[in-house]
Amino acid sequence: MTRPTVGILGGGQLARMLALAGAPLGLRFLVMDTASDACASQFAPLRVGDYRDEAVLAEFAAKIDVATFDFENVPAESAEWLSARVPVFPNPRALAVAQDRLAEKTLFRELDIPVPAFATVDTREELDRALASVGVPCILKTRRLGYDGKGQFRIRSAGDAEAAWQALGPQAAGVGLIVEAFVPFERELSVVAVRGRDGEFRTWPLTANWHVDGVLSASLAPARVDAELAATAVAHARRLAERLDYVGVFALELFCRGGELLANEMAPRVHNSGHWTIEGAETSQFQNHLRAVLGLPLGSTAMRGHACMLNWIGQMPDPAAVLGQAGGHWHDYGKEPRAGRKVGHATLRADTPGALAEALERVGRALDRDAQVAPPVAALRD
Amino acid sequence: MTRPTVGILGGGQLARMLALAGAPLGLRFLVMDTASDACASQFAPLRVGDYRDEAVLAEFAAKIDVATFDFENVPAESAEWLSARVPVFPNPRALAVAQDRLAEKTLFRELDIPVPAFATVDTREELDRALASVGVPCILKTRRLGYDGKGQFRIRSAGDAEAAWQALGPQAAGVGLIVEAFVPFERELSVVAVRGRDGEFRTWPLTANWHVDGVLSASLAPARVDAELAATAVAHARRLAERLDYVGVFALELFCRGGELLANEMAPRVHNSGHWTIEGAETSQFQNHLRAVLGLPLGSTAMRGHACMLNWIGQMPDPAAVLGQAGGHWHDYGKEPRAGRKVGHATLRADTPGALAEALERVGRALDRDAQVAPPVAALRD
Repeated sequence: MTRPTVGILGGGQLARMLALAGAPLGLRFLVMDTASDACASQFAPLRVGDYRDEAVLAEFAAKIDVATFDFENVPAESAEWLSARVPVFPNPRALAVAQDRLAEKTLFRELDIPVPAFATVDTREELDRALASVGVPCILKTRRLGYDGKGQFRIRSAGDAEAAWQALGPQAAGVGLIVEAFVPFERELSVVAVRGRDGEFRTWPLTANWHVDGVLSASLAPARVDAELAATAVAHARRLAERLDYVGVFALELFCRGGELLANEMAPRVHNSGHWTIEGAETSQFQNHLRAVLGLPLGSTAMRGHACMLNWIGQMPDPAAVLGQAGGHWHDYGKEPRAGRKVGHATLRADTPGALAEALERVGRALDRDAQVAPPVAALRD
Repeated sequence: MTRPTVGILGGGQLARMLALAGAPLGLRFLVMDTASDACASQFAPLRVGDYRDEAVLAEFAAKIDVATFDFENVPAESAEWLSARVPVFPNPRALAVAQDRLAEKTLFRELDIPVPAFATVDTREELDRALASVGVPCILKTRRLGYDGKGQFRIRSAGDAEAAWQALGPQAAGVGLIVEAFVPFERELSVVAVRGRDGEFRTWPLTANWHVDGVLSASLAPARVDAELAATAVAHARRLAERLDYVGVFALELFCRGGELLANEMAPRVHNSGHWTIEGAETSQFQNHLRAVLGLPLGSTAMRGHACMLNWIGQMPDPAAVLGQAGGHWHDYGKEPRAGRKVGHATLRADTPGALAEALERVGRALDRDAQVAPPVAALRD
């Protein structure tokens, strides 16, 4: 298998960045997506089709040597079907667990990874019982198919239960519902980790994340955390990866409150909070994911200096302000503008926290995005 | 011109790496090459055709917003023709000068950039006169269309003149010939530089190069040179770029002898001795070439630690030894093996000269390439 072809289910920006990172390894790619304008298709061949269509999957499987994902909501049955024909990493079981908030949180508990209180909800009556056991405030979520804050309803008091049920109750029979305690966290952190076929496990430095309306807005690495907390976070990620026999990159999202960590969720793929690794680390999450999937030695996850990623949502700003910074790097995913859509990101890198804070402030002023840069600037100046 | 399409004349590894570096800027690419299996076509659309075919050039011009080169031997007339239709960077005059060893060396002299003695040769008699004026040993070269040591004949004594004429004389009428003094240099250095549309000029740290059979074998950066010598080399490159109103990346190759620099040649494009910038510098030569061509702010050329590039000629070695090093990076151009062909390279990066030397030695042993790594290792240990 010299120069294998890697099949990627999902053709968005993650697939695009995987293809760009894998080209130097001599890899070829074939991307599958339901949309003919999937942005990865600008740099990799695209097969348009439904993930549930066995004829399409069979044709896809025949053309690839190994399969992976840009997208965690590929039907688990499709991943299973494919895995009978070609190696699939991460394995379909890991994907299935990560797709289901209940299975995921249940596994976290089994692995002694603390989680916020939660309860499953199938009926209106169960919602009331869940509110009583979990307490308010809490969040009603779909068990499956939710991401970037979609499929969630915030319950501030018991009186919100009916409105929450109106909003999400119709999905109870289909994707299932879960109530999770609302965690008044001080910080959101993520561990971006990679595990090789041989079990080798590495993590990039912990990343601090800020969301706006449920969508990642900024990520800063390394997050300033004490060594014990960092070691705990890494140990959680490692137990999870080993239990799932996980191969490839994944992210474990954590809430931090009063020096304690609570697991929010895992993403079974390269992750938005790891985009800074392209310029900020010796080896990016994208290349290490491919190295893992192909059974190649993993690259160093050591980082250089300090890096902050800013997400561009809806439309791309003018690039000049970012490109004019000494460590300014631009990532335009080649997408058409659309409200709420992740269309690109920037990474700013500097050797010191102070220099990075200043570069962020300059970019915030130039692009009228002071609010977006303020949280990482405050963290850097803390 | 948001998201312009960049046309690249020549579809080899340089075009391939340009496309990969330009994707994050939101660029699209169209590559033109005479070969249907040009390796850039794995990641960018390819138009197969002859550079002299105006119908092909017209179609190419209609689909692109700006043109550049992966290959300096594109006919100057084709570049001129194209430049009447779309912006072409570097400009065709710069390309024409760099294509002709006589014009190039004459310009170097005009700009007070020292060069080895040289003389033009059109006839057998002129060859004898040239040997008398330049002295032996010297090298008879074609004025145009030579690269990687092709089109050259080494003359050790006057007695070799006839054999040299037999070898290259038939090309005198077509591409012209030149005799250049052989410089018993101690070191070969290159300045990889970039100049923006607005005249901004930057260089990466000086690189030391080693050739085998006229083909680059290894590059090491930063080259250990005293500050005065480095400043002189950069000043040479700057004068050259300004005189040619050069836009984009170019390399100036220099011989170093007894603390003096002699210019060998310029390459009007991204250059093999700058490949280490992909992982070793804040901004790679490939991205900065595109930023220059598009009129975007240039990125920082600061480097991190020490980097050594090893060229793979003929066929790719096993990647595991390189990928197993902490700062080991792999570049497989996706080409079929062929004797003498540049098929890929590796870059090793480390924070200290000692760590880099050790990594090189490990790779040399694992791949049975001790001879290839020996010169940079010696330079690092010097």
